[in-house]
Amino acid sequence: MKSYLDMTKQELLAEREAVSGQYAALKAIPRNLNMARGKPNAAQLDLSMDMLSLDPACLAHTAKGVDARNYGELAGVEECRQLFADLLGLEAKNIILGGQSSLNLMYDSVMRAMVFGVYGGSRPWGQQGRIKFLCPVPGYDRHFAVTEAFGIEMINIPMSSEGPDMDMIKKYVESDPAVKGVWCVPKYANPSGITYSADTVRAFAGLKPAADDFRIFWDNAYLVHTFEDEGDELLNIFDACREAGSEDMVYEFISTSKITFAGAGVSAIAASEENVKFILKQMGVQTIGHDKLNQLRHVQFLKDVPGIYAHMKKHAAIVKPKFDCVLNGLDREIAPRGIAHYNRPRGGYFVAYEGLEGTATRCVALCKDAGLVLTGAGAPFPYGKDPSDNVIRIAPTFPTLPELEQAMELFCVAARLAALEALTAK
Amino acid sequence: MKSYLDMTKQELLAEREAVSGQYAALKAIPRNLNMARGKPNAAQLDLSMDMLSLDPACLAHTAKGVDARNYGELAGVEECRQLFADLLGLEAKNIILGGQSSLNLMYDSVMRAMVFGVYGGSRPWGQQGRIKFLCPVPGYDRHFAVTEAFGIEMINIPMSSEGPDMDMIKKYVESDPAVKGVWCVPKYANPSGITYSADTVRAFAGLKPAADDFRIFWDNAYLVHTFEDEGDELLNIFDACREAGSEDMVYEFISTSKITFAGAGVSAIAASEENVKFILKQMGVQTIGHDKLNQLRHVQFLKDVPGIYAHMKKHAAIVKPKFDCVLNGLDREIAPRGIAHYNRPRGGYFVAYEGLEGTATRCVALCKDAGLVLTGAGAPFPYGKDPSDNVIRIAPTFPTLPELEQAMELFCVAARLAALEALTAK
Repeated sequence: MKSYLDMTKQELLAEREAVSGQYAALKAIPRNLNMARGKPNAAQLDLSMDMLSLDPACLAHTAKGVDARNYGELAGVEECRQLFADLLGLEAKNIILGGQSSLNLMYDSVMRAMVFGVYGGSRPWGQQGRIKFLCPVPGYDRHFAVTEAFGIEMINIPMSSEGPDMDMIKKYVESDPAVKGVWCVPKYANPSGITYSADTVRAFAGLKPAADDFRIFWDNAYLVHTFEDEGDELLNIFDACREAGSEDMVYEFISTSKITFAGAGVSAIAASEENVKFILKQMGVQTIGHDKLNQLRHVQFLKDVPGIYAHMKKHAAIVKPKFDCVLNGLDREIAPRGIAHYNRPRGGYFVAYEGLEGTATRCVALCKDAGLVLTGAGAPFPYGKDPSDNVIRIAPTFPTLPELEQAMELFCVAARLAALEALTAK
Repeated sequence: MKSYLDMTKQELLAEREAVSGQYAALKAIPRNLNMARGKPNAAQLDLSMDMLSLDPACLAHTAKGVDARNYGELAGVEECRQLFADLLGLEAKNIILGGQSSLNLMYDSVMRAMVFGVYGGSRPWGQQGRIKFLCPVPGYDRHFAVTEAFGIEMINIPMSSEGPDMDMIKKYVESDPAVKGVWCVPKYANPSGITYSADTVRAFAGLKPAADDFRIFWDNAYLVHTFEDEGDELLNIFDACREAGSEDMVYEFISTSKITFAGAGVSAIAASEENVKFILKQMGVQTIGHDKLNQLRHVQFLKDVPGIYAHMKKHAAIVKPKFDCVLNGLDREIAPRGIAHYNRPRGGYFVAYEGLEGTATRCVALCKDAGLVLTGAGAPFPYGKDPSDNVIRIAPTFPTLPELEQAMELFCVAARLAALEALTAK
């Protein structure tokens, strides 16, 4: 198979003609497929159905006799804080449990920083004029939507296979007091699938911010979401921070959304004791506490850290064939034609497809017209603007395997057609 | 029995001596009682235990086949929105479901108004300098804590048996564009137990605010919490607003916290369609949706509006004897001595005790020293400052009946002693 990059104009035109025909044929078949969001499939949700038939008597009270059905326990029930602490290599006192959405915890953390300020900061972020967040790209669109909503300027930071460009991050953070935060998905990053190297994590922990109120938003959404072999190793950022004396600089977020139920899990923020105290004081005005029954449900069902990893093996058995399907499709149809790079993640929820410059929007549109919804081109970038218009986030988990086969057939033809249009337009 | 107000100084001094002795005797008995918060008792929580053993298969999907375990449905599942709509005499499109805390919905509503503004407003509240909220007093301490946290000035509005002083509210709202909101608990008000009259509700609906971004925060926390006979009637504020053309002016809040589980209920905000659209757009940045399994659990368990009222009858059977205990104690020990007024609520969670001026702090301290925790004196007022230092909020529900008997015995002695100290100090 010849790379498109080695083809003559005439060969490209002929290929375009052929691929246009393939596309038209596929488009003629009605379909309604979705690879847009990192949503678990029903089979994955079925794995946690036993959580809905636990003995009610075991849910009503905590081990220490606190009535979980009543008000109280702002930071969450002790055994569930401990479970998250064990998972993150921290202590229960470092954990605040939230509702079912870690996004909500992140949003509220930005909101509180804007309106009230953070521990150790002299003023609320919102009273300091124009402030900035660093955004490793491609990244998670919902992160960027939060900072955009609060009017925070976002600066793109390129990613390598080691994580974000730490020289650039260091320069911004250490020279500009208007830089208040950075969004990170350190393991199986959304959407690149990359896991930050130990050096990268240490470089984060070693930052000496110009601002007295800078925070790293460490969204460890995929910590346990390995589907390939032993997966990637991520250095515990709090271990690195302890060495550097910078524990107050990090807010870590995690949830069981993709462990148990995407719509009814438990989320947590992990932070230094000082940060936790400061946050709880502010949070105590907002709520009396989150759903403790659901916290106990999770402890009863998942039991402990080995229990979580055992449960994730079941997810892996469902998820891995889907990633294989996507990667096999790309390996067969795209790689030999030289029109894209893509990662081979060992966990997480996404494959980042990096095509030829200026082809992402067109490829997404071609797919949409033929009944396959992808994440909008540009979505993985601040303000929805992909400077090179070449990144497409593929989310393989939600469709069934037969749907995914169909989706990938269409995707590869659309991607080839978009590439050919770009190459023949020159 | 002679009223203290009719006693001579000598009689008062003798009575003080006697009551001091009674107090000392009670104080000598170790006890650990709490009438501080409006928390349901364990027996009330037991009423909803069947909600924890529903058929898991009935929880996983909505009637229309939406997978409740997965992401999505920002405003909540349709059948649960409909249940709240039926209860409030509205349509499902007027309902946004939240997590388990209506306080959280209120806080977030104030936050969004501060940072982003409200539907129809020209600028965020937070960009308009000093702004104000009207606070009918005595009121709910957590409401006041929210507005205080956001730096909103609070203005006390006196309450009568009809509700807040509407002449005063009208004057403030219609003359001062800095007045942005008013906190209301319109039925079985916290803590006075008063239900707003139909005229009061119509007066609210008829307000013509000077501000283009004024909102009534209508916290209908006790809508169905009647324990006496048929209870009070509250005019539906949205009906009154529809007549006045002012539907956009109201945010109504409600939750099942004191219907099912205080720590694991479902909350809702009810508002005009325009408000709902505007709020959902902002909320969509904060979360992907709230816990839909818990929403379905509530629909399965409560079923419909008659189901809710039937369930509340069970609460009433537990709650009414406790209010009787409190009122009997006050009728026996306090009323004849002429040292306090108090309400006789037909629902809700509180009795507001209004003693002699300058005695509330002392009475609460006397109780505390003898092992009975009450809501702090001043708590039902903005900034925790009761100008007359005479209101004490009594919350009868949490203790068991025998505990409550003990608590009331102590309370009445402490209240008499505080009154006698004040009267003899003159």
